[in-house]
Amino acid sequence: MKIIIVGATGTMGRHLAAAFEKEHEIIRVASKSGDIPTDITSAASIENMFRQAGPFDALISTAGPSYVGPWKTMTGKEFQKGIDGKLMGQVNLVLIGQHYINPKGSFTLITGALAQEPVLNFASASAANGGVEAFVRAAAIELENGIRINAVSPTVIEDSPQYFPFFPGDIPVTMKQLEYGFRKSVFGANTGQVIKPY
Amino acid sequence: MKIIIVGATGTMGRHLAAAFEKEHEIIRVASKSGDIPTDITSAASIENMFRQAGPFDALISTAGPSYVGPWKTMTGKEFQKGIDGKLMGQVNLVLIGQHYINPKGSFTLITGALAQEPVLNFASASAANGGVEAFVRAAAIELENGIRINAVSPTVIEDSPQYFPFFPGDIPVTMKQLEYGFRKSVFGANTGQVIKPY
Ligand SMILES: NC(=O)c1ccc[n+]([C@@H]2O[C@H](COP(=O)([O-])OP(=O)(O)OC[C@H]3O[C@@H](n4cnc5c(N)ncnc54)[C@H](OP(=O)(O)O)[C@@H]3O)[C@@H](O)[C@H]2O)c1
Ligand SMILES: NC(=O)c1ccc[n+]([C@@H]2O[C@H](COP(=O)([O-])OP(=O)(O)OC[C@H]3O[C@@H](n4cnc5c(N)ncnc54)[C@H](OP(=O)(O)O)[C@@H]3O)[C@@H](O)[C@H]2O)c1
Repeated sequence: MKIIIVGATGTMGRHLAAAFEKEHEIIRVASKSGDIPTDITSAASIENMFRQAGPFDALISTAGPSYVGPWKTMTGKEFQKGIDGKLMGQVNLVLIGQHYINPKGSFTLITGALAQEPVLNFASASAANGGVEAFVRAAAIELENGIRINAVSPTVIEDSPQYFPFFPGDIPVTMKQLEYGFRKSVFGANTGQVIKPY
Repeated sequence: MKIIIVGATGTMGRHLAAAFEKEHEIIRVASKSGDIPTDITSAASIENMFRQAGPFDALISTAGPSYVGPWKTMTGKEFQKGIDGKLMGQVNLVLIGQHYINPKGSFTLITGALAQEPVLNFASASAANGGVEAFVRAAAIELENGIRINAVSPTVIEDSPQYFPFFPGDIPVTMKQLEYGFRKSVFGANTGQVIKPY
């Protein structure tokens, strides 16, 4: 398979790229580096990325910038970071990518347990996650030619100890669990699902 | 109670304003008319509305513009209508309104069954609804002074027969059921809930 990983230089993306490159062709995408530097907050940049990448079988996104900060002083402008990035950025990967993906291909987007289980300071990510999860259900009934779409929704992950203090009581998802969540979406047959890899 | 209804001139808002004005002071807000004309896609316009309205006990929002149209040609720009309107518009009503609402006050936002049960052509509203529902859960653990927040999520409503063809098999929610959903949020004690008035 030819797999585009958007967010390939991040904590999740690096693990997934290393795991999948043994058997698949991987195109690494991120905003500051990677095979095709791309800013998912720009539709033009996304369009350009798909044009360069050519037809593909799966797109994995682990790129979802959002705002983290104290609620009481949070402005709409700050909050918007998760909406422009994690929500609209991933929506645009699908709205545009559907015209480049091969029949029977798949999109797998990233959300997170914050959609259902909020923690303090992360309201922007919660809203983005909830939006992406509902979008995945809506897109699943619209996409044609056997094209599938799912989201993977972990709690805090093993390789991100810097976030542990924000998620009291959350048992970190191991990198293997996370990888298996993505495997289920990319190599399975389901669509419109939110996969909780734990 | 002093209740601000944003979207007061619409199908839902007119019913709720008429039902609640018997016992409460109602401030009617909408973009083209109402007591205080306000565009919820503009943070400055929202700030101005709260300044004019003064301290209040409850805010009800039934204002949630979104994009409806065929999936295959849907652009990010079109999709964005629901994100800027129904999602960020309502988020900004809360982020800004928290500084004007009385202690023990409440916010009640509008979503809809599309968050869980998509129908064709409404992906923008689905994503906005999912975002608002996750936002409500996140805001509920952040708001102080006993301030509550909930969402009301109906299926298609009785007084909107023009939408029936888009929602095959959905039993329309009666205006009384809808009203009772809002009553539960405004006059009850719950917070962080998505109320399905059916
Ligand atoms: N880490 C966790 O514990 C955890 C748990 C649950 C959910 N999540 C979610 O999972 C996602 C990935 O997490 P992570 O820890 O792997 O994040 P990360 O280490 O910060 O990596 C993010 C990746 O996305 C890329 N990226 C960021 N903004 C971009 C943009 N505008 N356009 C294109 N690429 C962009 C980054 O590369 P550049 O900087 O070069 O753009 C990087 O490759 C996030 O949405 C996060 O909210 C994380
Ligand atoms: N109708 C249904 O069957 C149904 C079912 C489930 C969910 N919903 C959701 O419920 C909400 C309300 O539905 P409805 O049928 O009552 O809609 P509606 O009849 O179109 O009324 C919308 C109200 O919101 C106001 N509004 C629109 N854009 C605004 C803006 N940018 N700033 C301020 N006010 C604005 C409108 O007034 P102006 O035009 O003057 O701005 C009007 O008062 C929508 O979000 C809809 O998606 C509806």
